[in-house]
Order: sequence, then C-alpha cells, then structure tokens
Amino acid sequence: MKPELHIVKIGGRLLDEPEQQEDCLHALAQLPGRRILIHGGGSQASELASRLGVEVHMIEGRRVTDHATLEIALMVFAGLLNTRLVAELQAQGVSSIGLSGADGDLIRSRKRPSSPVDFGWVGDVERVRVEFLCQLLDLGLCPVICALSHDGQGQLLNTNADTVASEVAIAMSGTHSVRLWYSFDKAGVLEDPADPTTVITQMDKNRFRQLKESGSIASGMIPKLHTGFRALEQGAASVCIGQAGYFARPGSSQTQLLL
Amino acid sequence: MKPELHIVKIGGRLLDEPEQQEDCLHALAQLPGRRILIHGGGSQASELASRLGVEVHMIEGRRVTDHATLEIALMVFAGLLNTRLVAELQAQGVSSIGLSGADGDLIRSRKRPSSPVDFGWVGDVERVRVEFLCQLLDLGLCPVICALSHDGQGQLLNTNADTVASEVAIAMSGTHSVRLWYSFDKAGVLEDPADPTTVITQMDKNRFRQLKESGSIASGMIPKLHTGFRALEQGAASVCIGQAGYFARPGSSQTQLLL
Repeated sequence: MKPELHIVKIGGRLLDEPEQQEDCLHALAQLPGRRILIHGGGSQASELASRLGVEVHMIEGRRVTDHATLEIALMVFAGLLNTRLVAELQAQGVSSIGLSGADGDLIRSRKRPSSPVDFGWVGDVERVRVEFLCQLLDLGLCPVICALSHDGQGQLLNTNADTVASEVAIAMSGTHSVRLWYSFDKAGVLEDPADPTTVITQMDKNRFRQLKESGSIASGMIPKLHTGFRALEQGAASVCIGQAGYFARPGSSQTQLLL
Repeated sequence: MKPELHIVKIGGRLLDEPEQQEDCLHALAQLPGRRILIHGGGSQASELASRLGVEVHMIEGRRVTDHATLEIALMVFAGLLNTRLVAELQAQGVSSIGLSGADGDLIRSRKRPSSPVDFGWVGDVERVRVEFLCQLLDLGLCPVICALSHDGQGQLLNTNADTVASEVAIAMSGTHSVRLWYSFDKAGVLEDPADPTTVITQMDKNRFRQLKESGSIASGMIPKLHTGFRALEQGAASVCIGQAGYFARPGSSQTQLLL
C-alpha cells in the first residue's frame, strides 16, 4: 500500500490574515504522516509592487511577469513568505524546509511562448523531481514550496501556485496516496459567491460545467477547479477545497471534487 | 580520514558584480567533493531599503535590524539572492539547495541582548545542526546558506554572514576537514588598503594585532579576520581570504590565516 501524503496549498489572501494562517499551520501540524505545504503570495507581491511603484499587469486573472515583477516574486514568495512559514512551522514542531523549484532541481519549467499572449517570465511546468521530494520526506522533513520554477539554464520563472500544487500532487501520486487540500479564505466553492452558506459539498465535472455556463461561480475559482480536476484525473486520491485549517477538522464544510 | 569540505563565503559587494559572481560560482563548480556556499547581501539590502524609503542605521559597522529592516533582509537574502544563486549553480551543473537558518532548524540563535547596544532583530548563533547539513551533503547537494537564523519560537534573526560561515565551519570540523574560503572583491588582506599589490600572503594573530594597532588594516576587514581566526582556532583545517574565484586557481594571490 502506498503511504499517505497530504499536500496543502494555501493562497496569498489567507497569508494576509494572521489568525487564518496560524489556524492553517496548526492544522498542518496535526496531520499524521507525510506532508507538503505549497503557497502563493499574489496579494503580498501586489502590495510590494505598489510600494516600489512597479505596475501590476493582469491578463485573464493572471499576472504578467516582467523583470521587475519577477524580482518582486522572488523577494515575496521565496524570501518573505516562504522563510516565515518555515520558521513558524519549526515553532509548531514541524521540521520543515523551504524550497523554490530551483532547489534540488525540483520543478523544471519552460518559459511560456510569448504568442498569443506574452505573460513574460512565466513558466509552464515540465516535470517535478519526485526522487528529491521523497528524499526530503524520508528525512522526516515537510517541504514548503513556493510558486517559482526554473528552466535549468539559470532563469527563474513565476508559476501559478494552484498549478504547482496540482503538478506536485500528480507527480507524487506514483509513489503515494495523495490527498490534495486547497485551503483559502472561503468555506468551499459557493453556489452563490455572496452567500457563505451555499457551499457545494461535492462537485463533478458536469456540475462544474453547469456552474461555469450559468456564470454563478466566482471567476477566480475557475482555474483552481481546473487544476484540482486535473490532479484528480491524473492520480490524486482526493482533492478538496475549504477554509484555512479545515483539512484537519473532521466534518468541516468543504467542497470535494469527484471524477 | 575525514572527508574534505570546502566552505565558500561570498560577500554582498561581490554579488553586485556579475562577472565576479560568475567567476565565483564557476570556481565553486570546479572544486572537488563536498561544498557549502554562504553569502551575505548587505549592499543589496541597503539598496532595497533606499527604494522603500527605509532608513539604514549602522553601529560599529553593523546593521541595526528593526522590523522593516528584517523584512528587507528576508526578501533580499533568502528571496532575491539565495534563489538566484541556486538557479545559477543548477545551470553550472551543481545540484544545490538554498537554506536559511530556519530550514531544517539549521542555525538556532538567540536575540542579542538590547544592552549595551540595541541591534534589534539580530541573532547570536547558539548551534548549527551538523546532522542536517551532513544529510544534504550525503544526497550530493551543495547547501547555499543565507545569513538568517531563527530562535525556534518562530522569530527569524539577522546574523552576520562572516559569522555564519565561521560557525558552520567550526561545527562541521567535527566530521570534516574544513577549508574555509572568504571570497570578496579584493585580492586578499592589504597592508595598504589603497594599494592592491600589498597583499599579506600569511597572517598570524600577532601580525593581525600589529596591523590593527597601526591602523593600517581596513576597518571592514577586522570582524572578518576575527571570525576567520576563530574558525581556525576551533577546528577548521585552513582559512583563506581572496578575490572571487581564487580558491579554485592554484597560485592565486590570497591571505592565509595561521595559528
């Protein structure tokens, strides 16, 4: 039987709320066995960009990464957020290690073609080095991965954190029974984004299609759900979406994706 | 016989010079066997502080680390510089992994007492987790360590990079024959700081004392030499100071410290 591996992805907005972040890290510390934490940091990157007078360009909800924006991503994702998350996990008794995709050649990606849309220094994941993650897990470490990859030629590339979570989940599914937990600031996918009591507890791709067509699903949820369904189709044992530390509390409100 | 371990420390000013940095990383890639890279980043931190309008306070050549300055240190040391060094080493074929002192509980420190001088969020090293570094070296990885430590309670602390290099060298000397190489922007310790041809090729503590007393040694060199002599006295097999990638070029100008 494959060992169980919990992969928790936390979004940037959750990292803006100290109580939710603490709840999330505390919950991670409660999970038994092998664990990987993956985090975003878009809202903190936008804040630093604003302080530095660097304009943020978004196309279809995705950041355009020019040279100055890539520097900001390195500083915020790998510097400010990743290092703090590791220090806080250590304080919770979780032996952890912060990683970008360049560390141990973990996530190799290819710069996205500049046509039809030039997203700049953005990488599409080519492969995840499973062997390296397994070595770290074997040492009892909890890898904490930020949303940066590299091309193997010295170039770092910005990569969507939901995508990183999904690609790591898929890659690790060969050797582990992977439970992927998207953790954000809502109690699940809402049927009515304005009403927090309308959590959809289970969703298959048909339901997802209907919700997309009716326009009732929040636009920011669509890429997250795409990456979640992809992980489920490619080998993850379970994929759920919920609020902060829900994944360690049985009976919590959440949305489970189904094939 | 203990295996040989090369520990290379590169300063922030060298990281401002792309050619010297490349020379240094290329030289590191040429070194046989086990390697650790340790880096500073003071000049880049000062530059970001200036862009963000954060004032830099120095006392006796050491940075005072208030909350805003610690954030800058995280962003620059662990984010911008560490991540880039790792990506560039991967491109040179060196399998590397970036670390702060919080990763794997590598460097535990204690906040420096606020009296007689309050340096803010600065840590004095208490211990280096040798076992963790040995595990990474056993995996064939080159650890790339930035000058941040933690207190085990979730607080990150700024720590002088020369001191980190010296403390890591001392800790690793129990299991390795450690060669510590300080790499900076001069060809060694100069008898006359204005004349690059006056490199002192060998220096013992008596000579160091004479040079300090005569005031001929550059003031920035004094803490570096203190940490270097400390490493040599506490177990390092050799300690040298020189320019960029000198450590991989036999016959290069350099200053060797002697007991």
